[in-house]
Amino acid sequence: MTPPVTGSDGSMVEADEAWHPAWLPGAAWRAVGSRRVLVRGAGPVLDTVADELTRAGAEHGGTVRRSTDRPSPEPVDLVFALTPAELPAVPGPLAAPGPLPAAAGAVAADIERRYGPDALGTEGFALARRDGVTVVLADRPAGLLYGLFAVVRLGEAAFDRDRAAEAHRPAADRRMLDHWDNVAVHPVTGQVERGYAGGSIFWRDGRARHDLPRIRAYGRLLAACGVNAVSVNNVNVHATEALLLTDRLGDVAEIAEALAPYAVRVHLSVSFATPVVVGGLPTADPLDERVRAWWTATTRRVYERIPDFGGYVVKADSEGQPGPFAYGRSQADGANLLADALAPTGGVVHWRAFVYNHRQDWRDRSTDRARAAFDHFAPLDGQFRDNVILQVKHGPIDFQPREPVSPVIAAMPRTRVAVEFQVTQEYTGQQRHVCYLAPWWSEVLRFAPWGPDGPTVGTLAAAGGYGAPPPAGGGLVGVSNVGDDRFWTGHPLAQANLYAFGRLAWDPELDPRTILDEWIGLTFPPARAGVDEAVGDQGSVRRILHTVMDDSWRAYERYTAPLGAGFMVRPGVHYGPDVDGYEYTPWGTYHFADRDGVGVDRTGATGTGFTGQYPAPWAQVYESLADCPDELLLFFHHVPYSHVLRDGSTVIQHIYDTHFAGVDEVIAMRHQWVRLAGLVDDRVYARVTERLDEQLRSAREWRDQINTYFFRKSGVPDARGRRIY
Amino acid sequence: MTPPVTGSDGSMVEADEAWHPAWLPGAAWRAVGSRRVLVRGAGPVLDTVADELTRAGAEHGGTVRRSTDRPSPEPVDLVFALTPAELPAVPGPLAAPGPLPAAAGAVAADIERRYGPDALGTEGFALARRDGVTVVLADRPAGLLYGLFAVVRLGEAAFDRDRAAEAHRPAADRRMLDHWDNVAVHPVTGQVERGYAGGSIFWRDGRARHDLPRIRAYGRLLAACGVNAVSVNNVNVHATEALLLTDRLGDVAEIAEALAPYAVRVHLSVSFATPVVVGGLPTADPLDERVRAWWTATTRRVYERIPDFGGYVVKADSEGQPGPFAYGRSQADGANLLADALAPTGGVVHWRAFVYNHRQDWRDRSTDRARAAFDHFAPLDGQFRDNVILQVKHGPIDFQPREPVSPVIAAMPRTRVAVEFQVTQEYTGQQRHVCYLAPWWSEVLRFAPWGPDGPTVGTLAAAGGYGAPPPAGGGLVGVSNVGDDRFWTGHPLAQANLYAFGRLAWDPELDPRTILDEWIGLTFPPARAGVDEAVGDQGSVRRILHTVMDDSWRAYERYTAPLGAGFMVRPGVHYGPDVDGYEYTPWGTYHFADRDGVGVDRTGATGTGFTGQYPAPWAQVYESLADCPDELLLFFHHVPYSHVLRDGSTVIQHIYDTHFAGVDEVIAMRHQWVRLAGLVDDRVYARVTERLDEQLRSAREWRDQINTYFFRKSGVPDARGRRIY
Repeated sequence: MTPPVTGSDGSMVEADEAWHPAWLPGAAWRAVGSRRVLVRGAGPVLDTVADELTRAGAEHGGTVRRSTDRPSPEPVDLVFALTPAELPAVPGPLAAPGPLPAAAGAVAADIERRYGPDALGTEGFALARRDGVTVVLADRPAGLLYGLFAVVRLGEAAFDRDRAAEAHRPAADRRMLDHWDNVAVHPVTGQVERGYAGGSIFWRDGRARHDLPRIRAYGRLLAACGVNAVSVNNVNVHATEALLLTDRLGDVAEIAEALAPYAVRVHLSVSFATPVVVGGLPTADPLDERVRAWWTATTRRVYERIPDFGGYVVKADSEGQPGPFAYGRSQADGANLLADALAPTGGVVHWRAFVYNHRQDWRDRSTDRARAAFDHFAPLDGQFRDNVILQVKHGPIDFQPREPVSPVIAAMPRTRVAVEFQVTQEYTGQQRHVCYLAPWWSEVLRFAPWGPDGPTVGTLAAAGGYGAPPPAGGGLVGVSNVGDDRFWTGHPLAQANLYAFGRLAWDPELDPRTILDEWIGLTFPPARAGVDEAVGDQGSVRRILHTVMDDSWRAYERYTAPLGAGFMVRPGVHYGPDVDGYEYTPWGTYHFADRDGVGVDRTGATGTGFTGQYPAPWAQVYESLADCPDELLLFFHHVPYSHVLRDGSTVIQHIYDTHFAGVDEVIAMRHQWVRLAGLVDDRVYARVTERLDEQLRSAREWRDQINTYFFRKSGVPDARGRRIY
Repeated sequence: MTPPVTGSDGSMVEADEAWHPAWLPGAAWRAVGSRRVLVRGAGPVLDTVADELTRAGAEHGGTVRRSTDRPSPEPVDLVFALTPAELPAVPGPLAAPGPLPAAAGAVAADIERRYGPDALGTEGFALARRDGVTVVLADRPAGLLYGLFAVVRLGEAAFDRDRAAEAHRPAADRRMLDHWDNVAVHPVTGQVERGYAGGSIFWRDGRARHDLPRIRAYGRLLAACGVNAVSVNNVNVHATEALLLTDRLGDVAEIAEALAPYAVRVHLSVSFATPVVVGGLPTADPLDERVRAWWTATTRRVYERIPDFGGYVVKADSEGQPGPFAYGRSQADGANLLADALAPTGGVVHWRAFVYNHRQDWRDRSTDRARAAFDHFAPLDGQFRDNVILQVKHGPIDFQPREPVSPVIAAMPRTRVAVEFQVTQEYTGQQRHVCYLAPWWSEVLRFAPWGPDGPTVGTLAAAGGYGAPPPAGGGLVGVSNVGDDRFWTGHPLAQANLYAFGRLAWDPELDPRTILDEWIGLTFPPARAGVDEAVGDQGSVRRILHTVMDDSWRAYERYTAPLGAGFMVRPGVHYGPDVDGYEYTPWGTYHFADRDGVGVDRTGATGTGFTGQYPAPWAQVYESLADCPDELLLFFHHVPYSHVLRDGSTVIQHIYDTHFAGVDEVIAMRHQWVRLAGLVDDRVYARVTERLDEQLRSAREWRDQINTYFFRKSGVPDARGRRIY
């Protein structure tokens, strides 16, 4: 099916565009672009702010003045300015053209009174409206960039009434996307490992693509949702990619320069064996002086070329990647080696905690992959340098649609911990299924490891907060779902996951429904000015997209592996059902279903003892069959099919019911979606429609395979007599 | 592990060899090479005979005279000559040097008296010894080549006593190996689809390798076991391979020239869509005159370049390959299109009967892949041209270690049918397991579809024989197991499968144990002259290899899928166990195991009706639960785990018992094999030892997964209390 070049909705279609504008179409800029704007300040990021406003003004009739322009008596509607506290340090032109509007000064004073001096930090901004002027202030240039996108999000609401001054700062300093992009096409994993959106925007067939307009456009989207760092190559570092650190550093510098105007810093995934593979040393032992010297010198050269380089990402001793274990050294020794090399330049090392035995014997029920990260890393708490960030997957296994929160996050008070999410939908439908993941991430971020009175995962990741002295937080990391696909993410609605990741990284407290509402408003703005977005077609778009997406993650959970069992996917590809696919493999992901029951006993009393890795109250909650949440029942317990859940249903009947219900939800989604024909860009419509067809096919396959599998095993018929094969 | 360059047994090791000599090491030529030989006749194949003898004579002290040499009074021990009937037609030098030994003339007269004139045909030979002279006669040059290798096989026995003249003719005219070799490396299937012996000897990375010495050496091995045709590219024909018929025909011609001296003809696999893909026509419709003209012209050009070209191999309308169905035409229409193009030059088209729906719905139990070939082809009997050979896999599914014989073989009396075996061990251990397949093939070839009084599969394939007028047979085809591996076949003992395929194609009545004995004698000859091969170390080698290999196919069957169930392999790779791996796929290969029982009901009474595709008595035997052979029980019937087999064991206990027994056999094999350390080439020893380790690991995995799977489903404990997980 070839979608038409011109859609039915003029504002949604930019016929000559090389890629979809995602959440920054021209129409989203109408409110900002129709104003008279003053931008006060200089430097590359402020140039970006001014350029964005100029482009929007050209489209929507507004004007932009900069502090470098001639003074003008024209009144302004919108001001972007660095705070007065900052101004004296900036020479010359920043003072011009003439004094700030009085409103701006009043806002600055207000902010300082309410929050204290220098309250906005390196990325925060203040937003207010008074006396007919909307004011955005920041202490540093990046803050004005984020303030700009905040005003775009607000649209007309930024101008329709007075607003008290309010400061906005990101919860976490580090909001990163990891690209699992290979430079050279890998024979098994391809150009982008776990990528479902075409090729890489950075690399193709062994070389840099040099597609700088696309990379800049990507940076712009990231800044608009709050992401400030990108790792540009796969954590599985192969031979070609190892050279990015040395021979091919210029390619990385080029990307860094393209992203810098949007305040996005570049990181590199590096192989722990690089001193051997690239450096020609006989060892990569972290305590060997030659190795230390090699990393120090190499890192210095990186910073000479890329002054704002972010640091390294390392997957070590994991799934075949080299690491310190080969030399009898600890993970802390390994991480500190790189941290020491990075320390003089302010860089950080993101050291992944994804270390486990991937050559497990399925016959051995005492080994538990869920325990591995805690067992490896918890004893090392306190041994990591300050610029090591331990990057922990949010669950103890691997990005399943349902897992408990990783106990590692609460186990390392003296370590900076970043929480890693998977924006790319490896286990959640691979961008062929609608699966809006923010509700899932939000559950994780709101989880309180020590109970309701303690800090949440979001707090811990964002800013530390375990105790005194609190280490800085590690931030949030997402595995990117972006490729060179026209829609960036394969499935157009998967753009919302990328957007939501950035927004949650900025503020883990945000409500997923609110984030989605923002995304809808930006991505599907009215075609004409003055449209009431709550009613008519525009209201339909908003309501239908909420109906399709709000509960889509839970729908996906319903028609896939039940009750936290996880990993009933086709091995390798991880798409589609295969209940026993991993059951007899070395990967440590089992469900132990037999004719009597199913689930993994991870209790301390009779199982692997994984529950004991949690602090109270969760250790007790998970240990108890009576208290364990139903949605995690099979993760923590092996139960008979007749076990009764909280709603009175048996496990086996629950399996049948949720699988029939999940498919019915997909059917309903599809019914809703087709009502959008003609109301959204035809190409978006065609692509989503095609993928919903596949989602429905796939969901039915899941339903029938899961139900048939458990019916054949249990022999228990469906109480409602539906068709099971 | 790097095997040593020099082995412990001088005669077994040729340190500078680029590849292993397989069944033609220098020492195998000792008896022939130490004789005084006369070769009478001319032409390329007779040059080959003379060259082989000259090389052997140089190594072992013998002499060779040709009919073109000066007359000599020297007596001879061994004569190769075209029959007198043939001689008058050959001008000049053939008569020289002087008259044949009287013994030769007497043998010729004897043969003509016993078998009639021209009895030896194009490939047969007569062998006799009288008056101290061993005589090989043939009507045509190829016969002398096969006679030469027959004498090599006999060794000293060819010279130790008088032998009455005996004629040897191949049962089948067509004895072909199909190479599933890709020219360009395929992203999924690699250089050689289902190849387990390294790369292709013909192609590498998109180009011909031009390794003519290797190709000639291959032709020599083929001639020595009786194969006379090779298809040089994969039946799945991709873009690059489609050009072999046109732009890249020179590469094929080069291979053909290299193989011609060994009387091996070259065939090509072609895509049915070639007129579109390569020829630029808008259609490949077999009834379109442009298409017919294109094939005729293209085929003429092939024969202009390769006069002894064999013909085409076609996989059409199968697993995604194009075919006549796309144009609403029958398989006969498709095959006859190519047959008509080939007819003027005497070529044949091998049209594969492997047509089935590979997008089946696993929920639909009425569709049966086993039925497909019969349903598609039986109604077309009588519609195929005389130079169409319908190439039928030996079983109705796909080269499993146990299947019934395909009913298609007995269903097409007016069609030439070739039976296809898989020498490459796709489903039988992939040349990591010892699995001597000749006993399996022999069972198939001895199967009598109409009962003991009717012809066997071997007879049908070799020479027709259904009725009057009997069509010529289609022959035997094997999917090659050869690659550029040093040992040709990855596992050195897998050479025996290649050898046995050729020998069975020559004579389907041969006993597999006898063939193996031949192979052992040739491949592992004594290091020195005068060694008694039955005793001492030499006897040990022979006995141990028999112990390891004779029953290895049945051992493999025991530790893999039970009772004819088949296809419990890892999807895609087809190595290692995955009981449910294909259970919910579109491939039509299911076992339907539930908590009560297992197997596919293919009866006419309650199942798919596949049993009805057999003639009496087999239709009744397979239909009956009481009469169906145990080894095919689950292929034909769905039975409870408590079903009692002929030996009194239940199905579930049989599963446990055979799986424990199968692993024990591998352990025993390994114990036997290690006794050969120092008695066989060190490199052979090292390679086989390493593979036996893997075989044992893999067999244990099969045992434990199969047993655990069925224990979890059935809940029935092992009566002998062994460990099941």
